Parts: sequence; C-alpha cells; structure tokens
Amino acid sequence: MSQKNIAENKNFGGQVLLYGRHPVLAAINNPKRKIGKVFCTKENADEVKKALSQNKRNLSVSIIDRKELDKLLPKDAVHQGFALQCQELEDYTLDEICRLAENKPNCHILILDQVTDPQNIGAIIRSCVAFDTLALILQDKNSPAETGTMAKASAGMIEQLPVCRVTNLSRAMAQLKDSGFWIIGMDGYADTYIDSINKKGKIAIVMGSEGKGMRRLVEENCDATVKLPIAPSVESLNVSTAAAIALYEINKK
Amino acid sequence: MSQKNIAENKNFGGQVLLYGRHPVLAAINNPKRKIGKVFCTKENADEVKKALSQNKRNLSVSIIDRKELDKLLPKDAVHQGFALQCQELEDYTLDEICRLAENKPNCHILILDQVTDPQNIGAIIRSCVAFDTLALILQDKNSPAETGTMAKASAGMIEQLPVCRVTNLSRAMAQLKDSGFWIIGMDGYADTYIDSINKKGKIAIVMGSEGKGMRRLVEENCDATVKLPIAPSVESLNVSTAAAIALYEINKK
Repeated sequence: MSQKNIAENKNFGGQVLLYGRHPVLAAINNPKRKIGKVFCTKENADEVKKALSQNKRNLSVSIIDRKELDKLLPKDAVHQGFALQCQELEDYTLDEICRLAENKPNCHILILDQVTDPQNIGAIIRSCVAFDTLALILQDKNSPAETGTMAKASAGMIEQLPVCRVTNLSRAMAQLKDSGFWIIGMDGYADTYIDSINKKGKIAIVMGSEGKGMRRLVEENCDATVKLPIAPSVESLNVSTAAAIALYEINKK
Repeated sequence: MSQKNIAENKNFGGQVLLYGRHPVLAAINNPKRKIGKVFCTKENADEVKKALSQNKRNLSVSIIDRKELDKLLPKDAVHQGFALQCQELEDYTLDEICRLAENKPNCHILILDQVTDPQNIGAIIRSCVAFDTLALILQDKNSPAETGTMAKASAGMIEQLPVCRVTNLSRAMAQLKDSGFWIIGMDGYADTYIDSINKKGKIAIVMGSEGKGMRRLVEENCDATVKLPIAPSVESLNVSTAAAIALYEINKK
C-alpha cells in the first residue's frame, strides 16, 4: 500500500490515517484501537511516548518533520505535528446497541439519514459524546467510512462513541421501537417544538440531510416529528448545529 | 487587481468574492450590497437573472463554465456554479448597535473574543440570524475580514446580520452595560448552567476561542459566567456549536 493511498484517507482494507493532537492521543488512549505506525514532530515526541507507555503500547515513534507530515496527509490537514496509522474502529451491531440500552431507562440514540459529509459527521460525534448520547446509527450505503477528517472534526471523540452502520434504516427503527425507544424525527415543517416533548425514557432522534431532510419512508416510521425554533428567514441550520441543539435539549435535566 | 488576488479571497480594498448558491442569491437580494461582477454557469443563468431583475439591479451576468469558476475561486470552494464580486458589507458602529437595541426590551448580542476561523464565524452568523440575535461584535485586531468562506458557512445569512468590529472589547462591553445589557460570559469552569439565567431583558453573550476561552480582562468585565452541561470527558465543544446552543437557549420562549 503506497503512501499516496494513505494520504487519500480512503477506506483501504480498514486502515485509516489519523492526524491532529486530540485524535492521535485519544486513539492511543483507546484500548480498542489497533495502531500501526505513529508519527510526530520532534517537539511532540515526549507527549506521544508518554501516552504510549501509559497505555502499555510497545510501539516506536517515527520522528518526522512538519513538511514530511504535510506530504503524508491530505492537503490542508491541520495535523499539529501528530499522525497515526491504525485500523478503523469496529462498528457495533444494532443488537449490541440495543443491549447497551437494556439497563438504561433514560438514554438517547442519534440516527442520521443521508448525512454524508465526514466533517459534519465528526462534529456530530463530538456533540453526541458531550451530551451523553448512547450511540450513533448511520445508513451503511450512504455514509462515509471513518476518515482522518472525521476523527479531527470529532476532536478525538470518535474513540468514545459506539457507531453502528445499518443497511436498512426503517428496519433498524422498528427494532429500536421493539427495544423501547421512542423515535423522534427532526423536521422543519413539524407542528411542535423539540422542547415540548417528554424527555423521559429511551429516545432516538432522526435527522436528515440539510437540503433534503429525512426520506419519506424514514419520516413515516417516526413516532413523532419536531422542529427547532428558528427565524423564518433562515431555511435551515447546518445539520451538525441542529443535531447539537437537539441532543442538548433532550439531555437537559 | 489580478484574478489571483481575488482567488486568495483576501480583503483587498474592501472587495470580496462570494460563491455558492445561497451566498450569491442572498447578496443580490440585499439592497445594501454593492455588486461588481456576477458569474454563473449556464444552467444557473435564469435563476441569477431573475434575482437581479427582481432587485432592479442592472447588471450583466458572465456565463462561465464550471472549470473556469474552479480556477477563479479558492481551491475546494463548493461554488455550485455561482460567484459574485462585490464590496464588503459596511460594518456597524457600536453606537448604531446600541440604537438598534433602544426600543427592544428583550434582545441579544453575541460577542466573540479571539475567534479567528472564518468558517466558524460564518457558522456562528447563521445561528445568530436563526435565533434572532440583534448583532455580532468582533474584536477588530484579531478577527478576519469578510471572506467568501465566511459567507458560504453562513449560508448567505451574512447579508442579514449587523456586524460590528471594535478596537477594545472591554470598552465596548462597558458601553453595552450603559445601554442596559447584562453581559454573560461562556466559561467551562463557571458554577452555573446557562439555562438557569433570567432570559428577560437585554443580554450580551461573550464567547472566547475554543482552546483558550475568554481573555482574563474580558471575563472580569462580564456580569456573570455560565457553562453548558457537557460530559466531563469532553474538554469543550466546537465554538460555533457552543454559540448555537447558547443563542438557542437564551432565545427560547
């Protein structure tokens, strides 16, 4: 596998190149993350070596200068002198997600329908962890694999959030309902605002893409739809902003 | 002035190159926006010409193909076949902002201390408009001029929000207090949560940069500091996410 392939940051046999201080240190601190090579600039070597040793990871560190890192990584990647080649995190199955929810009478899941931008998904992962979301569910076909961009936008929080990719979103929603989840779709045309819902119990929030919203069949499978109170002159919020507000609101005590 | 200068998207004599469907159409619809040249691809010509004529703008449209637009604009700019060369919007003075607030017993202002990323500022502008924020105040020295990236991240909402750049943030905060504003700083180490504040009256929210937060003197000039309820394992939220949640919360009825 050439360095060019790595730099393109594609899903090649489940490997991914992470970059940036937070993503790299978070990956080292995650016992589930299988790490190949670790790269950093001289001034970051002590911090990286310390993290490796604290996690009993017997790995050497390639000291590399900033320009070489620039070449290794996608253009404009803000690497801060840190990079790491590793295996993709293993996805959770929907059964595993339902088992995680079993003993939690109050918990939340976020479901994304057709959201494809890795930067948005990364930002959403960061908000999920910030607001104690149990898991993120994506549609297998239309969602990007894990990338360095996604991990960077998540500020390393990708290491902490169970992610599940499903083939059929409507079927997954049916299984979540059977597991006691109440499914709420975010829809700018809904009649009620999100803060009027009963926040007790197991809730799954569904969000569509910014332009198109949820697909019709997905929306029909929701138990209810709600909207955010935004000014009429604004068509919509950025999907990661809307997700953050929704997760904040349902997580409020 | 060469096209290269334009493409670098810098502040050259107050001109800026906007791109993307929403930013370009919003600029045409804004009577305060002084427009130079309009570029679009063939398939967008009817929409652009209609917007120009509806706004009684007697301007010709340069039909240009997608690749030429790519060359004209910063790399990776998602232009959707729309671009427009125009004057920067005129900033508001702080006196003007205070006058806007005069007859509004309940209104909100957002103040950014040391937030410099145009993408974040653009996203914040979009949330300001969505949540009926009266104006955005930036520090002159450390905040970027208007750019195409900023306008794109705002989804064109930059046309709707009064923006004011001040030299001395602490002095501006003093003037806002004199005008009846209560000044609340966002600080991860605050003792109280944002939803516990009294939302009535005139409120100015102050946010620092993601890593460093507000500068000490700015924080000392706040009437109170509050935080968002985020999980302890998450150091902070992205500044545009945190701003959106704060503006959503204080704008809730």
